[in-house]
Amino acid sequence: MNIPKTNLKRVVIVGGGFAGLELAKRLKGAPYQVVLLDKNNYHTFQPLLYQVATAGLEPDSIAHPLRKIFRGRKQFFFRLAEVKKVQVDQKQVQTNIGNIQYDHLVIATGSGTNFFGNQEIEYYAMSMKNITEALDIRSLLLQHFESALLTDDLQERQALMNVLIVGGGPTGVELAGAIAELRKHVLPRDYPDLDIRQMHIHLIEAAPRVLSGMSEQASEAAQGFLEKMGVQVWLDTAVSSFDGKRAVAGDHEFLSKTMIWAAGVKGSPIPGIPENAVLKNGRIAVNAFNQVEGQEDIFVLGDLAQMASEGQPKGHPMLAQVAMQQGKNLSKNLRNLAQGNSLIPFEYDDLGSMATVGRNKAVVDLPRYKFQGFFAWFVWMGVHVLQLIGFRNKLLVATNWAYNYFNYARDIRLIIRPFSRPSKPDNL
Amino acid sequence: MNIPKTNLKRVVIVGGGFAGLELAKRLKGAPYQVVLLDKNNYHTFQPLLYQVATAGLEPDSIAHPLRKIFRGRKQFFFRLAEVKKVQVDQKQVQTNIGNIQYDHLVIATGSGTNFFGNQEIEYYAMSMKNITEALDIRSLLLQHFESALLTDDLQERQALMNVLIVGGGPTGVELAGAIAELRKHVLPRDYPDLDIRQMHIHLIEAAPRVLSGMSEQASEAAQGFLEKMGVQVWLDTAVSSFDGKRAVAGDHEFLSKTMIWAAGVKGSPIPGIPENAVLKNGRIAVNAFNQVEGQEDIFVLGDLAQMASEGQPKGHPMLAQVAMQQGKNLSKNLRNLAQGNSLIPFEYDDLGSMATVGRNKAVVDLPRYKFQGFFAWFVWMGVHVLQLIGFRNKLLVATNWAYNYFNYARDIRLIIRPFSRPSKPDNL
Repeated sequence: MNIPKTNLKRVVIVGGGFAGLELAKRLKGAPYQVVLLDKNNYHTFQPLLYQVATAGLEPDSIAHPLRKIFRGRKQFFFRLAEVKKVQVDQKQVQTNIGNIQYDHLVIATGSGTNFFGNQEIEYYAMSMKNITEALDIRSLLLQHFESALLTDDLQERQALMNVLIVGGGPTGVELAGAIAELRKHVLPRDYPDLDIRQMHIHLIEAAPRVLSGMSEQASEAAQGFLEKMGVQVWLDTAVSSFDGKRAVAGDHEFLSKTMIWAAGVKGSPIPGIPENAVLKNGRIAVNAFNQVEGQEDIFVLGDLAQMASEGQPKGHPMLAQVAMQQGKNLSKNLRNLAQGNSLIPFEYDDLGSMATVGRNKAVVDLPRYKFQGFFAWFVWMGVHVLQLIGFRNKLLVATNWAYNYFNYARDIRLIIRPFSRPSKPDNL
Repeated sequence: MNIPKTNLKRVVIVGGGFAGLELAKRLKGAPYQVVLLDKNNYHTFQPLLYQVATAGLEPDSIAHPLRKIFRGRKQFFFRLAEVKKVQVDQKQVQTNIGNIQYDHLVIATGSGTNFFGNQEIEYYAMSMKNITEALDIRSLLLQHFESALLTDDLQERQALMNVLIVGGGPTGVELAGAIAELRKHVLPRDYPDLDIRQMHIHLIEAAPRVLSGMSEQASEAAQGFLEKMGVQVWLDTAVSSFDGKRAVAGDHEFLSKTMIWAAGVKGSPIPGIPENAVLKNGRIAVNAFNQVEGQEDIFVLGDLAQMASEGQPKGHPMLAQVAMQQGKNLSKNLRNLAQGNSLIPFEYDDLGSMATVGRNKAVVDLPRYKFQGFFAWFVWMGVHVLQLIGFRNKLLVATNWAYNYFNYARDIRLIIRPFSRPSKPDNL
């Protein structure tokens, strides 16, 4: 990897998401050599991925080059690499570009989509965990509309126009709302030959309410917004199968060639991590210092870490704010380690949560206040613009949002690389 | 294709580039049903493709959804289609989504990259005729820099850092300048471990001057700008081979894994066009009305059309302004045909030409004035922003340029989809 050996201890951070990035930034000036590995050369602001999928923002608005963030940092090294394995005994990480020794290893590779073992759904449904997947959804939605024009078979046309979104968490709710806005403002004018009333957007949730991580007040308001926008919300309904055109959920059958799966996430552990620490959901059990039990040199942060505590037996929610706070806490602890001080346990400071459904429609749960509607939407926008990394991303997102707001527009409906499903695996 | 038959005569336009788009827009209100076919669902503003390739602009800034342009137009139909063949006898076009009858056929499919039969160069070099190719160049440049960090072999590292640009026309000059700016302002700060002095940018041109379509004054100034920016300009030098790492041109050998081929364009005729009209360079011979000789229902516009005239035995230059003027003239002639009036021959009104080399550095040849430098650069920017389609694209490009200018930045250096060469064909 061509990283010089120095007298400094080396911290290897795997993953430049919210946790890894926060940690790496905060280690500035600490007595460590910092090596950041990521399979992309950019950080992704995941909360806005759904806008890339629905033609509201381009990738460059929510991605930020990692090298730019760390310009001028001494003893900092970024490498574009995919990590294959951890060799705990040798304190070494194996990657596609070679091996690297660590003194402290920090794994912050986030979460992947959980299809709960259903390979048929995994093959036919779209997931949305990164920029290429979001772009694929954008292409597919548009490709299906282009194809819908060409068929005289009403069922086929409806299957091409309908959209199923599985999972009523923030991602599912935000996607459903954004697609409902496309249906209202953009698609009928782009496709005047199609009867837009034939397009149905179904949001299917297995739990009894959407946004089950938020207050009941927020859930109720979000569902109301969605229904007002014409999204059909199905609660207590679990999807059992999808063959690429027909989905079955409970007693219902849905006709659609587009299923976006936002129903589950799971940890993506790296091979070589002691197996007793890997939980069934793929997350890794850590102690209050984000350490893997029995491996005091290995820390796990963010979505991948499951830190059981009194109030949270299943660990903290998989949210950006948890990841960032853990990154911040670990940066302090690594400094403590260097100075021979004892470690500070992580304490989650829940700043609240929010989700947006559409223009002027969002829900916000703060620790003291809960509110919904226009003001919530305004707060949602402000918080997201401020949290974006770098002035250019803030500027672009704000410019795009202002343009889209005043023009009811989604002008990025470009099929740059058409999506085509890989060939079917043998077992399907 | 599900396009209704009406009493109106049908004009089928193949290609939504400058020519096809201009024609389709100007046929508004004419007594024709207009069908526009394109393999992309967007128009590409090709003059700024090089900025996509060099991380200055994202695709959405220079692409515009075709459907948006024609919103609300009666008797206008866009179809996302690839044309396979023209069946002249049956007045029919075959496409991947079915066949379509025409009364008047307009072919405006533009030009492709001409490798002059050298299959080795075609395989190893990058071309830049569309957005995906421009994005591939952006990825490859960055991938090579990431790889350069990993090698201890000096030759290999130089081959990864060096860039060869073949062809000193506007595309080659603008690319060379933009890459020189990356080398000056961006790459050394992103890759402090690499010695940027080892990176060489070679612009190789077979003719005795760059920008040979412009005035000698412009050529001289552009070459001066390029050399000042550290681009090595090779004139009277033709590349004869490139094996993916070493290029041979005259007596010289160049070490580089990146060759961008901007040395030639050729027409991409559609099978079925009468063979006697297809010229050796792939362009199609047309008369002064852009008609294919002997086929008065088939018109060819823009880069693909070669209209020999007294002053221009080899036809007009392959420029956006020629394409747009031909589209405009044909729109008048189709109206004339409908009214039984005679056709107006095309007359090219040369508005001048321009090219930019870098910040504050451009060359402009107007019919009466020729100037170079800061003011030329300012004019170049203004003309390009104004010619972009739609307010959003103008806004985004202007915003990006302002940001990049004041920050010396190219923040879109994202490897979204890594480029990998397809497997080698058997004959290489």
